[in-house]
Amino acid sequence: MLELVDVGPRPLKQYEPIVGEEVVEEIRELAAPLKGARIAQINATTYGGGVSELLRSIVPLYRGLGIECDWKIISAGPKFFTVTKALHNALQGAPYELREAARERYLMASTYNAQLLEAEYDFIIVHDPQPAAMRYFKGRAGARWIWRCHIDTSEPNEAVLEFMLPFLLEYDALVFTMDHFVPPGLEHQRLATIVPAIDPLSPKNMALDGGICDEIGAWRGIDPNRPLVTQVSRFDPWKDPMGVIDVYRLVRKEVPGLQLALLSTIAHDDPEVWDMYKILVDEVRGDDDIHLLTNLIGVGDVEVNAFQDCSDVVIQKSIREGFGLVVSETMWKETPVVANRSGGIPLQMGDGVGGFLVDNTEECAEQTLYLLRHRDEARTLGLAGRERVRQRFLITRLLADELRLVSSLALRST
Amino acid sequence: MLELVDVGPRPLKQYEPIVGEEVVEEIRELAAPLKGARIAQINATTYGGGVSELLRSIVPLYRGLGIECDWKIISAGPKFFTVTKALHNALQGAPYELREAARERYLMASTYNAQLLEAEYDFIIVHDPQPAAMRYFKGRAGARWIWRCHIDTSEPNEAVLEFMLPFLLEYDALVFTMDHFVPPGLEHQRLATIVPAIDPLSPKNMALDGGICDEIGAWRGIDPNRPLVTQVSRFDPWKDPMGVIDVYRLVRKEVPGLQLALLSTIAHDDPEVWDMYKILVDEVRGDDDIHLLTNLIGVGDVEVNAFQDCSDVVIQKSIREGFGLVVSETMWKETPVVANRSGGIPLQMGDGVGGFLVDNTEECAEQTLYLLRHRDEARTLGLAGRERVRQRFLITRLLADELRLVSSLALRST
Repeated sequence: MLELVDVGPRPLKQYEPIVGEEVVEEIRELAAPLKGARIAQINATTYGGGVSELLRSIVPLYRGLGIECDWKIISAGPKFFTVTKALHNALQGAPYELREAARERYLMASTYNAQLLEAEYDFIIVHDPQPAAMRYFKGRAGARWIWRCHIDTSEPNEAVLEFMLPFLLEYDALVFTMDHFVPPGLEHQRLATIVPAIDPLSPKNMALDGGICDEIGAWRGIDPNRPLVTQVSRFDPWKDPMGVIDVYRLVRKEVPGLQLALLSTIAHDDPEVWDMYKILVDEVRGDDDIHLLTNLIGVGDVEVNAFQDCSDVVIQKSIREGFGLVVSETMWKETPVVANRSGGIPLQMGDGVGGFLVDNTEECAEQTLYLLRHRDEARTLGLAGRERVRQRFLITRLLADELRLVSSLALRST
Repeated sequence: MLELVDVGPRPLKQYEPIVGEEVVEEIRELAAPLKGARIAQINATTYGGGVSELLRSIVPLYRGLGIECDWKIISAGPKFFTVTKALHNALQGAPYELREAARERYLMASTYNAQLLEAEYDFIIVHDPQPAAMRYFKGRAGARWIWRCHIDTSEPNEAVLEFMLPFLLEYDALVFTMDHFVPPGLEHQRLATIVPAIDPLSPKNMALDGGICDEIGAWRGIDPNRPLVTQVSRFDPWKDPMGVIDVYRLVRKEVPGLQLALLSTIAHDDPEVWDMYKILVDEVRGDDDIHLLTNLIGVGDVEVNAFQDCSDVVIQKSIREGFGLVVSETMWKETPVVANRSGGIPLQMGDGVGGFLVDNTEECAEQTLYLLRHRDEARTLGLAGRERVRQRFLITRLLADELRLVSSLALRST
């Protein structure tokens, strides 16, 4: 048997005060025909990363709806995960020479996990490249199979895509995060797009009262009486934290006393982030109004939440971005965002909703300054941002999309 | 100039609702003669570890009292810190061969930092071994010097202690965390003990409303309707997380549905913790009621706070412990503790206050079970625990102790 992650049920009703009765009712209607259906959601890991966060939120909701949804984890050794990490990066465009040993490692573990998977499901949703070949080795097994790709495969390493294609083509549906992320030339009778979403009840997004936010900020060294701009993102060159510091310095000329917080998670196995962290430590030395806040000093999801909440402006200066869901996280707190026009960001905000889209450092500084000086307008943008998230980027919408997709597969003849 | 960490002032008044008018008044009286005095607090790092957490809390309080207190950081390269890490471990008893190159590295950086230190302070409080030799190289410089040792030096590596002694003996006072931590044979005219303390306004200890605690637990997979025991400690053999799992399994025989949460910070440069983490992951596989929660998945200070708060019993099963301040953190939340009789733990709790002291796994299981079955008594113990912390282990008491020490040095003739 594949390992089960028992997350228990969560009643959809908990979301009703946030999304409204109508949305809850719609989801119940979508779920009704699937009552009693057995769904497996399969990924590589219980903890860490966006996919496990998503499953931790959505699997209990399925269960709360009376759908038997199991979250299953594949089983494999570290060498397998070294290979799949390389495949993952290669599908996002990194150079990689796929050797025979790596192929074998991947195929062997996929066969093994396919055998471990119980043949008792009506629908099997497989996430990302690690477990993707299970369908191929398992056969249909009486189920409808969905591959859910969470990464940007718009410019994949061609050899790796070619290796993966036979496994992907076996699925009944392939789901991508944005149309733009679909690999060029991929043809499949059922290509779908489901944009990601945030869980308004998770520690990162739950409602905190303003007092707690200010206390957290104050203890971390933020003066609540002076303006604060923040960026929440990995210390990674593509997120351009150095550019954010440039923006801060430009704006600070006009707004003395401005403070900057840069929040990042630092993973042990991410040397690039470590290098960037050290560069940033050197860069900010001597300026006590720049705060580098990381998980290394106890900054966790709730504190990210608090900083997104209590900042005057949040910047997302990514040069390259996946979907950039952190923008929706921020908008959910009614905080105005100034963000680079990259990845999925323009899909989430802009045109009078949530903040301003920009294309370079000068524009970013200009619009940040503008928001700091036009508080009423900033507030209006922030309010519209939250409303946009409520309409389009909450987990309930994603759940509805998934239920629709699953139902549509159920209806098709075998 | 040594690098300054600008943390701003924090009014003592913020603590009055917690500690009472009398304590605040006493601190004001202790501070009054020192008004205008200039104090430097010197340590090795702005972020990470207990000392920087302490300074982040206490330096603003000095400033709020009208005492000019600067937090200063020494400046040195990575090789220096490799040496001081070894010295630190050796002073705690680890084997270490102190080579000439290491001595030189340490002395060179100490001389350099002594030169960087401005000669404008009345009192200089130096924390831990890294900056300890600065006094030796700086000379008195018109100031009173205090060395504040935060580690257990009761069984030091003798060669390293011998190397450090000349630097330590130059201080006007040496402060240890517990009498028991003073190195054997150390003679000094002014040896003091100041036990550590928690900051009730920090993210780890601030008041959270119960709803938030339960929401955080629920999202992390805890069923609020079933009992929960927790241990918060590094995944380190000395903290005996495997023993905690044994306790959980023993108690679960009597209390079906019992849940266990093990919370730890995992540092990138701590291979022992990584090894233990992997062992634990294997150990808990298949039991979804054991939760390994770390900073890697966004568990930060506020979430540690929430888990200490919403647990039915917190275990601290350390085989060896320093002061074990996490016990006071827990007691502050009125949660009963079952803890091994090790390090500074018996100083904090026991005898009807805070919970039960135990000596082995069976006793630990027995007392945990007892507390789960005797809720009223557990509540009474918890309440007494919070009161004990309020009296003895809050940052205000530590501040008063430090002010008394500083004043006493001021009174002595030069």
